[in-house]
Amino acid sequence: MNDVTKIAIAGLGTVGVGVVKMLHAKSAELGAKLGKKVALVGVCARSSKDRGVDLSGVEFFTDAQEMIRTCAPDIFVELIGGSEGPALEAVTHALQSGIHVVTANKALIAVHGAELARLAETSGAGLRFEAAVAGGIPIIKALQEGLIGNQVIRVAGILNGTCNYILSAMDKTGDEFQVMLGKAQALGYAEADPTFDVDGIDAAHKIAILASCAFGTIPRFDQVDIEGIRGVTSDDINYARELGYRLKLLGIARRNPAGLEQRVHLAMVPEHEPLANVDGVFNAVMLDAEPVGRIMIDGRGAGEGPTASAVVADIADIIRGMNGPSFGRPVQDLEDVDSAPSDERMGAYYIRLSVKDEPGVLAAITHELAHKSVSLDIVLQKARDPGANVPLILVTHDTREGNLREALGAIAKQPSVAETPVVIRIFQS
Amino acid sequence: MNDVTKIAIAGLGTVGVGVVKMLHAKSAELGAKLGKKVALVGVCARSSKDRGVDLSGVEFFTDAQEMIRTCAPDIFVELIGGSEGPALEAVTHALQSGIHVVTANKALIAVHGAELARLAETSGAGLRFEAAVAGGIPIIKALQEGLIGNQVIRVAGILNGTCNYILSAMDKTGDEFQVMLGKAQALGYAEADPTFDVDGIDAAHKIAILASCAFGTIPRFDQVDIEGIRGVTSDDINYARELGYRLKLLGIARRNPAGLEQRVHLAMVPEHEPLANVDGVFNAVMLDAEPVGRIMIDGRGAGEGPTASAVVADIADIIRGMNGPSFGRPVQDLEDVDSAPSDERMGAYYIRLSVKDEPGVLAAITHELAHKSVSLDIVLQKARDPGANVPLILVTHDTREGNLREALGAIAKQPSVAETPVVIRIFQS
Repeated sequence: MNDVTKIAIAGLGTVGVGVVKMLHAKSAELGAKLGKKVALVGVCARSSKDRGVDLSGVEFFTDAQEMIRTCAPDIFVELIGGSEGPALEAVTHALQSGIHVVTANKALIAVHGAELARLAETSGAGLRFEAAVAGGIPIIKALQEGLIGNQVIRVAGILNGTCNYILSAMDKTGDEFQVMLGKAQALGYAEADPTFDVDGIDAAHKIAILASCAFGTIPRFDQVDIEGIRGVTSDDINYARELGYRLKLLGIARRNPAGLEQRVHLAMVPEHEPLANVDGVFNAVMLDAEPVGRIMIDGRGAGEGPTASAVVADIADIIRGMNGPSFGRPVQDLEDVDSAPSDERMGAYYIRLSVKDEPGVLAAITHELAHKSVSLDIVLQKARDPGANVPLILVTHDTREGNLREALGAIAKQPSVAETPVVIRIFQS
Repeated sequence: MNDVTKIAIAGLGTVGVGVVKMLHAKSAELGAKLGKKVALVGVCARSSKDRGVDLSGVEFFTDAQEMIRTCAPDIFVELIGGSEGPALEAVTHALQSGIHVVTANKALIAVHGAELARLAETSGAGLRFEAAVAGGIPIIKALQEGLIGNQVIRVAGILNGTCNYILSAMDKTGDEFQVMLGKAQALGYAEADPTFDVDGIDAAHKIAILASCAFGTIPRFDQVDIEGIRGVTSDDINYARELGYRLKLLGIARRNPAGLEQRVHLAMVPEHEPLANVDGVFNAVMLDAEPVGRIMIDGRGAGEGPTASAVVADIADIIRGMNGPSFGRPVQDLEDVDSAPSDERMGAYYIRLSVKDEPGVLAAITHELAHKSVSLDIVLQKARDPGANVPLILVTHDTREGNLREALGAIAKQPSVAETPVVIRIFQS
């Protein structure tokens, strides 16, 4: 690389504009720290409308590959988004040309990470994606560098600010999901089409990337068990509080003898756990590792400043020569581990049933549970209303998930059980 | 560096043994990640007693400089401790010889950091010290790399596990400082001579290093305002809880127009602040920075595993070629900033007075405070006992520290005020 590092950015949304601003504002300081100047030479977007940033002297393109060909940047910054199409094509083109790539695109890395990392290795380019996971939190760096000598046991994180905002706000206001989703949309915390966020897909992209970096495995987004937050009710949030938990959407990855667990789902987090107290749009990642023990990092997981901060850090690392293996080790050394069957998960569960308030109901339910060796820690019957439906809350001791599912299948068929049972996993310290 | 990186370690205490264990256990994995083998070639300690680790094939020395001369390591790991004497001499020797240095020695870096970094720059060696601050938490890396494009506004941390253990345990048990110090000593959390920990010196070394990395300044341990925790009473801990705070020993650094604030002192931390909920031997560092916003990292700040984890990460970074400026920029670019006068601090204060329970006392006290423009947010008189001494708790609004000190000087002379007033700063979000 020459004394001036040429940067070209594709995608001028919130994050792209943030990166442009930061490169302008910090160019002198970055130059002093890195011993090299950074120059923005090209940007690419659908339209050249005014975005409130100074782009004089910067060439404008509507096609990312044309920009790469014309500008021949040292580093291509991909902020287009999406796992396929223009983002994949442009990143592929750049890496094949030996051009370093910095991306904030979680879908792209979660789905095509291994093949892109292989392209990078072949051409000697760097491929970095700190901004793809948990925005401004330098968690990829922590995993791959700061904790390089550790064996990670578990990664657990609050990885989607939209869901965490909705859950925190439901907890505070008592409003239901749809109301809060509307408020989040009005505040700009949720998209008009909130599918990616509230259905857990965004968090699943991130946990797939984290799992790969933590466990030395090929990123396998297709093997993440995903449940979103659409089904959450204020009742469950209230019972969570009553039982000493907070309801959070977690991404969890753990390698166990049966394979790789990768899951995104609502969890009851004990209120004394640091993850329980991460509220609003904040993200957090907790690592259990040996020998370092438990580490948690929390901060802003999205938005212009935090994401731009991570993109600029990746640019700086590449300029300093940190363009080693994208997932911490060469692609050929990454293992392709089967996903662990979710039935084998051992843990405790919160169950909410709606049952007819009549004699014998509880006995019939506990009989089915006992039949599958599921034992109960807590039974909470919240109201009496003879003959009508009332909520019945159960918390199990540690049990095999498959056994619980079978028992609940039988329980759901009982005439006194009115609705499909709600099951929420309890997060274990 | 050759395909095998030769490591020599001086100091075989807890951390040294941890590093040896980790290098043994992880050598294959580190080799795969780094593309280079790591070989421990020499160790140095006062005696060659059995420490439960396999040192066969490793040369033993009692003198670090002799080890450096004999082994000619690529990386010298300094775990001797102390800002002067053998540690300083061996690190100086290594850096002058162009040998990379990894150290966990906070005193050495806080006191001699700039001169050692200059030696490193001259000879082209790396000097890294992740393990010197907050043990296993990769905070130096986060500041210098992950947040490279940010302007840090404030660093605030729980940097001494011994003090945090004592304060957390006092809060839980109601015991007084001396009792808890004894328990911490019995558990191995505090040294027989606890001065460095409980008098705030250890935390001051760490905040001096953090301030340098955060603000681009020369580390100036001599300019840290230091107060320890010996004076803390269970009364203050109880009043803190009653007022919605937790009592923590914080290291705080902030650059303001008047200079660089570097302080270590007890602080009342609002209970909703993440720092308030970091208990026991855990450390935590909170950064406020632009544009990333607020980030907090917490984890184990000391002990064999966490500290060894940081030492091994530094070794790996040097092998990967990360041996740039020790404090994030060349020494000649580090500013030497005057320390900001503590009298100019603006903030709120908790004050505990012991006053005679008689008419007119409160009026006389508030008169002196008003005279210095100190206004009160809370006044708490805890007991009535006419004619005897009772506690009087005051919490001020934001005020200039110098004004408060002057007012309290006058108040302390009043005949109805029995003891020297206790003043504890309130941490501001």
